[in-house]
Amino acid sequence: MSKPKILLQIDSDAQPSVFDSVVAVDAGVEHLLRHGGVAPHDVAPLVHGTIFTRGGNDLRSTAIFVGGSRMAEGETLLAAVTRAFFGPMRVSVMLDSNGANTTAAAATLAVARHVDLASTRSLVLGATGPVGRRVARLLARAGGEVRVGSRSEERAREVCDDVAAHVSGARLAAVATGSAAELAAALKHCQVVVAAGAAGVELLAAEQRRACDTLRVAVDLNAVPPTGLGGVDVMDRGRMDGQIACYGAIGVGGTKMKIHKAALRRLFETNDAVLDAEEIFALAQSMATDN
Amino acid sequence: MSKPKILLQIDSDAQPSVFDSVVAVDAGVEHLLRHGGVAPHDVAPLVHGTIFTRGGNDLRSTAIFVGGSRMAEGETLLAAVTRAFFGPMRVSVMLDSNGANTTAAAATLAVARHVDLASTRSLVLGATGPVGRRVARLLARAGGEVRVGSRSEERAREVCDDVAAHVSGARLAAVATGSAAELAAALKHCQVVVAAGAAGVELLAAEQRRACDTLRVAVDLNAVPPTGLGGVDVMDRGRMDGQIACYGAIGVGGTKMKIHKAALRRLFETNDAVLDAEEIFALAQSMATDN
Amino acid sequence: MSKPKILLQIDSDAQPSVFDSVVAVDAGVEHLLRHGGVAPHDVAPLVHGTIFTRGGNDLRSTAIFVGGSRMAEGETLLAAVTRAFFGPMRVSVMLDSNGANTTAAAATLAVARHVDLASTRSLVLGATGPVGRRVARLLARAGGEVRVGSRSEERAREVCDDVAAHVSGARLAAVATGSAAELAAALKHCQVVVAAGAAGVELLAAEQRRACDTLRVAVDLNAVPPTGLGGVDVMDRGRMDGQIACYGAIGVGGTKMKIHKAALRRLFETNDAVLDAEEIFALAQSMATDN
Repeated sequence: MSKPKILLQIDSDAQPSVFDSVVAVDAGVEHLLRHGGVAPHDVAPLVHGTIFTRGGNDLRSTAIFVGGSRMAEGETLLAAVTRAFFGPMRVSVMLDSNGANTTAAAATLAVARHVDLASTRSLVLGATGPVGRRVARLLARAGGEVRVGSRSEERAREVCDDVAAHVSGARLAAVATGSAAELAAALKHCQVVVAAGAAGVELLAAEQRRACDTLRVAVDLNAVPPTGLGGVDVMDRGRMDGQIACYGAIGVGGTKMKIHKAALRRLFETNDAVLDAEEIFALAQSMATDN
Repeated sequence: MSKPKILLQIDSDAQPSVFDSVVAVDAGVEHLLRHGGVAPHDVAPLVHGTIFTRGGNDLRSTAIFVGGSRMAEGETLLAAVTRAFFGPMRVSVMLDSNGANTTAAAATLAVARHVDLASTRSLVLGATGPVGRRVARLLARAGGEVRVGSRSEERAREVCDDVAAHVSGARLAAVATGSAAELAAALKHCQVVVAAGAAGVELLAAEQRRACDTLRVAVDLNAVPPTGLGGVDVMDRGRMDGQIACYGAIGVGGTKMKIHKAALRRLFETNDAVLDAEEIFALAQSMATDN
Repeated sequence: MSKPKILLQIDSDAQPSVFDSVVAVDAGVEHLLRHGGVAPHDVAPLVHGTIFTRGGNDLRSTAIFVGGSRMAEGETLLAAVTRAFFGPMRVSVMLDSNGANTTAAAATLAVARHVDLASTRSLVLGATGPVGRRVARLLARAGGEVRVGSRSEERAREVCDDVAAHVSGARLAAVATGSAAELAAALKHCQVVVAAGAAGVELLAAEQRRACDTLRVAVDLNAVPPTGLGGVDVMDRGRMDGQIACYGAIGVGGTKMKIHKAALRRLFETNDAVLDAEEIFALAQSMATDN
């Protein structure tokens, strides 16, 4: 009989995420060990507690979740976790700070229902945030051409550098999207637009979106009205607006939750998984027939 | 099948209450998410984690408990919790900082066994503390006349204002109770005296209590000898001392514990309960035949 | 039916030990109440939450574990725990900061398989650390003669004073072990050597160990190569090297884990156990036939 499922929750925020804990319980975790305010130097002893307590097959009954509101800190913590393993003495771990990996996977999955990712040209608006970066990374990884949008072209270029560091051969372009003229240029010839900006800020008006005749998919990830893409409703889940399939934050959120739980369950299948953006998206694709 | 019962414990103290956690487990909570040192600005993301993770009927399988040693901070946290809800996106919540609501409900229930609350004149000694304030509030809400006692009449008046803000039409009087003469005047014509003062301080001598011929109930909430009311034993649970029914802290404590557990169980019956003093006392009354 | 098993984990480190939590789950604990950064003045309310919530036989379904990386702080916390009890209102508690009590019990048990502790002369190297102090204390308690070794004779003497304060009539000698000549003198006529020094530091070379013809047992508690005792492998578990039975850190670690779990289970059998070095070693001896 296998040991009780224990999840070590490592969170960069002072108060560890309740959201992540509730999802973990609903994915079958039996004991949560929740740690808030975790700094990189705290990580090794926490991880050692997971790998030196259960042996052999029982190692897969312990896993680690790295979260918090800041993805850069989460990435540093994930690196500290994997450094603390000793060869086969390891447990599975996933990173989902700010929900960015599971949200980006759900958004990219929505896009993939309508176009072939490898041959698609996409525009990501609000791409400098954690979710936007992850969406750009997944779209680039799939082989498409990605326009990384920000009001500041300099910040957009920084995101391109970050994505290129993870995806060799990525086809990326930094685009300024502050004005209507810049937006029109950025959107030209795109099949896909994804908005991942701040809550309550419209990044693209409905008329301008509809005026782009190559557009086939519009995904908005902002749950607080007004939505980031004019004319897209938070509940949209593939609703056709002319020839554009529309997705809103709540429409994508259901899929995000399924991916989040599937990733948590995956952690307990082996003791060697490291689930970051790409691995979580691959998992999402493998379960896509259910969504 | 319903989801596992999760209780988010929000505590104003740096180390969250073990007492509240043990009672929660014994009331059937399956997963505790314990947060200490919670400030009002921490509350919204914690609450969002409870309302954005489970939908529909499953919302009632998550609930929130607000505790800690300081009731004023607990009240502020409770307000922050209810502000963080979005319409029907809410879970049930109870406030019991310092155990004040459940203790005051148990004390008031003891009083109600012997007199008609609506037509009773009561004196609350040590009324400036968290439990005393809640007792005064419950007795006033039931329609009785309440004398709010403190060594400082000014502080007593502040409590009256606080109670009046919660109970419209409350019949309250601030009384100084520092000297024997003041105490005698304060006690005159009262049927009920409740002592909710600091541990180990006698507020009213046995002789003076027995000398008040209108008195029918005496409740002392101090568990550390000497008791607050002379001649009342911590174990008393309705023992008659002449014509006065006496209750001590432990005698009341058993009822308090039942009320505390019943309130916790109540949280998981619907997703919209907000349990403060009055709601917890109403619950206590509905289960009074068991006590 | 008994109540769910609750363990209050009091840890002196800011992030409470994951190691101790996982072992607790595997020993059958159903709910962990984990507290990090606990100072002595925090202890009383935490303990009161364990003793004022469940009555009678149910008190034995709650227990306390004191841990953290610093044994001196753990000892202070344990003292604060026992002070917070009220006569029979108490729960069982164990101290195992740094794993020192369970590791020392496992090391001493290994020694006892090969020699009669009461008539043995032992040298403890690296005796100033938490594990070394506990090993010296257990060997002295069993009646043997113990040489307490450190590079600094003054620090060794301080450890002797500490052990003597716990073990009346202890036969102790402080020895300097910084040079090969000092080591040779310290080892002379010893049947036992135990190394409890810092990770990755060889305290005694293989040749010098083998050159001691009275030696029968060598126990090394350092899991990071090079081991503290030259020629002893971390996996050794009674392997004979000439006439010397050798034990390495992992070889001892399996027994340590069994003792740790047995001590945790013992907590829930009565409500009055206080398990420090001696009690944990006695428990280890009673289960020794399994090891």
